Amino acid sequence: MDRLARMFDTHPEPASGAGDDALSAVTAAAECMLVCTSCADACLAEEAKMAECIRLCLDCADLCAVVAKLVSRPGHQDRETLERTLEACIRACEACADECEGHADAMEHCAICARSCRDCADACERMTGALVN
Amino acid sequence: MDRLARMFDTHPEPASGAGDDALSAVTAAAECMLVCTSCADACLAEEAKMAECIRLCLDCADLCAVVAKLVSRPGHQDRETLERTLEACIRACEACADECEGHADAMEHCAICARSCRDCADACERMTGALVN
Amino acid sequence: MDRLARMFDTHPEPASGAGDDALSAVTAAAECMLVCTSCADACLAEEAKMAECIRLCLDCADLCAVVAKLVSRPGHQDRETLERTLEACIRACEACADECEGHADAMEHCAICARSCRDCADACERMTGALVN
Amino acid sequence: MDRLARMFDTHPEPASGAGDDALSAVTAAAECMLVCTSCADACLAEEAKMAECIRLCLDCADLCAVVAKLVSRPGHQDRETLERTLEACIRACEACADECEGHADAMEHCAICARSCRDCADACERMTGALVN
Repeated sequence: MDRLARMFDTHPEPASGAGDDALSAVTAAAECMLVCTSCADACLAEEAKMAECIRLCLDCADLCAVVAKLVSRPGHQDRETLERTLEACIRACEACADECEGHADAMEHCAICARSCRDCADACERMTGALVN
Repeated sequence: MDRLARMFDTHPEPASGAGDDALSAVTAAAECMLVCTSCADACLAEEAKMAECIRLCLDCADLCAVVAKLVSRPGHQDRETLERTLEACIRACEACADECEGHADAMEHCAICARSCRDCADACERMTGALVN
Repeated sequence: MDRLARMFDTHPEPASGAGDDALSAVTAAAECMLVCTSCADACLAEEAKMAECIRLCLDCADLCAVVAKLVSRPGHQDRETLERTLEACIRACEACADECEGHADAMEHCAICARSCRDCADACERMTGALVN
Repeated sequence: MDRLARMFDTHPEPASGAGDDALSAVTAAAECMLVCTSCADACLAEEAKMAECIRLCLDCADLCAVVAKLVSRPGHQDRETLERTLEACIRACEACADECEGHADAMEHCAICARSCRDCADACERMTGALVN
């Protein structure tokens, strides 16, 4: 994500004030979007019925996508929209990680997905903290 | 949206419990997503500098899209993720409506967009209320 | 979608030239996006293993979403991008309809989804025709 | 994107057959989605009227997002849908790169965006080649 870092550096009027935390959040959210999308697809190919896990992965992928989009726009934004979106994404990541961890021993894709969700939740928490200050 | 209503009726295990309020929310969010996308494009074609309005329209369209996606999945979901997402969408709609109303007299596309945002915020509020009860 | 029609009418510099066909395409694509998302969720709740159908529904929902976004921007666009996107969406709709029709007798949500996909493919075909002329 | 690589490795039934080319395509598309979103936002903050460039960036971001989503699902897919989607993305990337290169000297964010678009188009071309063979 070196290029995105340079995009943020060359923006004429950056406004978020979240700096490196914004870059970490968008990077983690983009990865988590892809990993959750892929985990849902892998779960579809399992013998076991994974409906609950698939739903949580799909919801989490959608929330991560919107965080990635919003944080990629470093111009002036409505801060409360951004904060609430980060909160929704944190919750989606936690719910998905809780579910995936429950069968991480049997399915490695769920183990990887859970770690990606935890990292994304952490990055969104740090960005929320940077916005408040 | 008759077909979506029938999709909800024929779902084997609907879980949201939000019923008609869910259908209203997804219908309003889908419309608002398209109208905000279109308003941003119309604003780009204006002589005046509309950067602020365009940003709020783009953010609002993204939040409306995620509400439309989540609520279109009536199976069991993490309720807190859904509630937080609705809250983020409500805020994005209000911020966009506030901005668009400021130049509704000069630009009819902004007047229409503001009404679409208010209706979507209202529908999301009602769905939130239905989830809590 | 009366409001979207008025958005198109009040756009300062509409460029697609597709007129009513553009409005029909975006309306059909938005419905199909929601119906396919909902059908995938309903399929997850079925006893039978519906992995193939779910994948086709998810892909179709994603393509319909991008058609809805692109066509909602009536300003000047790269015509070839729009044409190729419509072609991809038409194919995704046909593949999903073919699959859903195969079990439309047993599952009403698939019967509804197949009709939504066929209508969306038709609307995209008509818009493609309008662009060429 | 080490985690996504491991997701692909641990998928129970990978079907695309595109291997490393699939991973390169999804990585390039995810980056280009973020960079184009960010370039549109930076263009909004410029003194100059950048409407054309912003529109092409938004369309390109949407096509890159759908490529990232589809290729993140390595299970069996409709190959023609995937090929047509890659074609649409290639075209969107080329149109956006052509425009951004036109003012790359004056605006560094456009120079970076053009390179991201060219890399994404190349990665999609290679994946298309891998699918055909």
